Amino acid sequence: MSMHIPQRVLVAPSGFKESLGADAVAAAIAAGIRRVIPGVQVDEYPVPDGGEGTAELLAATTGGDLVPETVTGPVGDPVLAHWARLGGAAAGTAVIEMAAAAGLRLVPHGMRDPGATTTRGVGELIAAALDDGATRVIVGCGDSGTSDGGAGALTALGVRILDSHGDELPDGGTHLGRAASIDLAGLHPRARDVEIVLACNVHNVLCGPRGVARVFGPQKGATPEQVEQLSSALEHWAELLARTQPVTGLDLRTGPGTGASGGLGAGLAAVLGARLAPRFDVLLDPAVAPCDLDALIDAADLVVTAEGAIDFQTPRGKVPAEIAARARAAGVPVLGIAGSLGSGAPDVHDIGIDAIASILTVPMELAQAVEHGDALLRDAAERCMRMILLGSALSARGALPLAA
Amino acid sequence: MSMHIPQRVLVAPSGFKESLGADAVAAAIAAGIRRVIPGVQVDEYPVPDGGEGTAELLAATTGGDLVPETVTGPVGDPVLAHWARLGGAAAGTAVIEMAAAAGLRLVPHGMRDPGATTTRGVGELIAAALDDGATRVIVGCGDSGTSDGGAGALTALGVRILDSHGDELPDGGTHLGRAASIDLAGLHPRARDVEIVLACNVHNVLCGPRGVARVFGPQKGATPEQVEQLSSALEHWAELLARTQPVTGLDLRTGPGTGASGGLGAGLAAVLGARLAPRFDVLLDPAVAPCDLDALIDAADLVVTAEGAIDFQTPRGKVPAEIAARARAAGVPVLGIAGSLGSGAPDVHDIGIDAIASILTVPMELAQAVEHGDALLRDAAERCMRMILLGSALSARGALPLAA
Repeated sequence: MSMHIPQRVLVAPSGFKESLGADAVAAAIAAGIRRVIPGVQVDEYPVPDGGEGTAELLAATTGGDLVPETVTGPVGDPVLAHWARLGGAAAGTAVIEMAAAAGLRLVPHGMRDPGATTTRGVGELIAAALDDGATRVIVGCGDSGTSDGGAGALTALGVRILDSHGDELPDGGTHLGRAASIDLAGLHPRARDVEIVLACNVHNVLCGPRGVARVFGPQKGATPEQVEQLSSALEHWAELLARTQPVTGLDLRTGPGTGASGGLGAGLAAVLGARLAPRFDVLLDPAVAPCDLDALIDAADLVVTAEGAIDFQTPRGKVPAEIAARARAAGVPVLGIAGSLGSGAPDVHDIGIDAIASILTVPMELAQAVEHGDALLRDAAERCMRMILLGSALSARGALPLAA
Repeated sequence: MSMHIPQRVLVAPSGFKESLGADAVAAAIAAGIRRVIPGVQVDEYPVPDGGEGTAELLAATTGGDLVPETVTGPVGDPVLAHWARLGGAAAGTAVIEMAAAAGLRLVPHGMRDPGATTTRGVGELIAAALDDGATRVIVGCGDSGTSDGGAGALTALGVRILDSHGDELPDGGTHLGRAASIDLAGLHPRARDVEIVLACNVHNVLCGPRGVARVFGPQKGATPEQVEQLSSALEHWAELLARTQPVTGLDLRTGPGTGASGGLGAGLAAVLGARLAPRFDVLLDPAVAPCDLDALIDAADLVVTAEGAIDFQTPRGKVPAEIAARARAAGVPVLGIAGSLGSGAPDVHDIGIDAIASILTVPMELAQAVEHGDALLRDAAERCMRMILLGSALSARGALPLAA
């Protein structure tokens, strides 16, 4: 009799928001696996999702730099943000993480009105990258605290958004209902020459019943009245963008990704000609990433992915869903480890995640789980591997073989 | 290629104290397993440990009755307790669960002085079983709130414990320091004719540095001064017991099990000739239990055990340790599921538990985990089985086979 143990494991997790970066998550899981199977080859591929941590992660994995930059924050105060100058084969590419300049975490709880916050700092980061000579700019969307249709970012790049009297509008999506014209005379000279790609969730659209104001407004802090006001302001903004700019085949109201980061997608696509692309197509592209994810999956006996929470939202385009889809295509089994397993977690079995586990060991508060995330992850990975080996050992005992 | 899945699983858990009885734990785990492997044969063997729930469980599994009985509680107030009249092949055997009459849970927090509490109610339960015609009495030890050397139980059975003036001592272990003689004239007429077996942790001894006063006194609520006072009172009591009773080869100070339930072991052994036996030898004896545990283990591809907490105490004679020892002897792999995985949990891999898992899914308080224990257990069993199947599937993919 013989037992089969994994010889090569790929660890491809997301970061755990507010706790550990994707690289730390990958390292902890890899350590847990090595404890159980000495000599196993563990490949670590921390997966960026476009949101918080994306720029730092890609700077690190490509051997580039993280460039600090103080910019205008979402409520107008200066914030210390950053962008990434990628290295290696991806040199020349800049990665802007919009959440670093306009993330929901930067909006104090008492000021969470998505009609009032601005993406001005995102434009300032793009300008910094352009001034630095970047030949390609990737804008990671996700974790945004804004819904200004990209107006703030465009303003920071030299665009003037005017009302019917020719006066510039104040910052904030709500005011876009009064936008009458867009003046491009002062646009940053390189803004249209450089390839700008938004890595976005293409399911997010700007307008209509599933538009950003209605879908994300409430979680960004809007009241029902603010949601409706913002929704109609963004409808007006979409019309103005379409009139200002020759249409390029993209429906600015409901086209894929137009609603990314509160409409940043629509604004940058219409005015700068930015491309709105599925985020993982951009962020996992071997041209940007340190190595070829699909090749690593193909070489693995087992893929381990992870996210802070696995729940009903996971199948809607989260990192574990992307990893599972690719692994399923390659016929490689997938294990998912999570800080918490929320409502609907078992649904992930339908998208190719074969087994799931939580890192929690004893009754504890979230803050404790966050504080001890590293050790909890390592121990959880160890427990999972032991259980997988137990499964392998069943064949050694001669449990009835079934045709696979 | 083929994959091996378990065809027959034995579920042999302990109860989860203050949450679910062992039978409910077994049923929940079995349900989780069946969700993943339709058609699997799951045998359920809920394991009594002598403590809370033991009488109820054995009454149920043998088809006997649970007999309610109001008795003197550990602090003197009446408590509604019970004993079990076993059925089936075990008819004639009574099971007393000492915790039902003198458990720590029955001692209010402000009154937790193990020198003051009494096992009088335990003797009342034994008397009730004797009066009912029991031909064999099993006393389950565990979860006790007393340290009276069995004096209270003996008093309830008609024994008089006298001081040097010939006056009866008040209840409580502390007073035993003044015990001068034991008067057996009024002893229950059947108390020495019927086989009495204490199902105890044989590591618990009455006296010396590892005696019950020092080891368990603090967790039963004693101050350091009370511990020393009680310790010397029990030394004196052991001497008196030895003088009163012809010695039967059992050292009443440090013999195996003399310290069971705060010295109930020594008292009943010396005065009634009760036998002090390793608890699982008694409680898992096919003569008492509904079926042969070892035969079920031998027939299983996989054994699943469980306890409220798996931690550094587990290897010291807890239910999962007993199950693992028997399964290891039979060469069957063991999975352990716990409400919480505490400090030292991975040590259980050394005693034959191959893999462990917690039922916790999200940060929560103990009270929540207790309230939802049933669903959490079912879901945890499902997750474990999926992970085990993932391990089995690795062989189907052709991961390098190693000699077992």
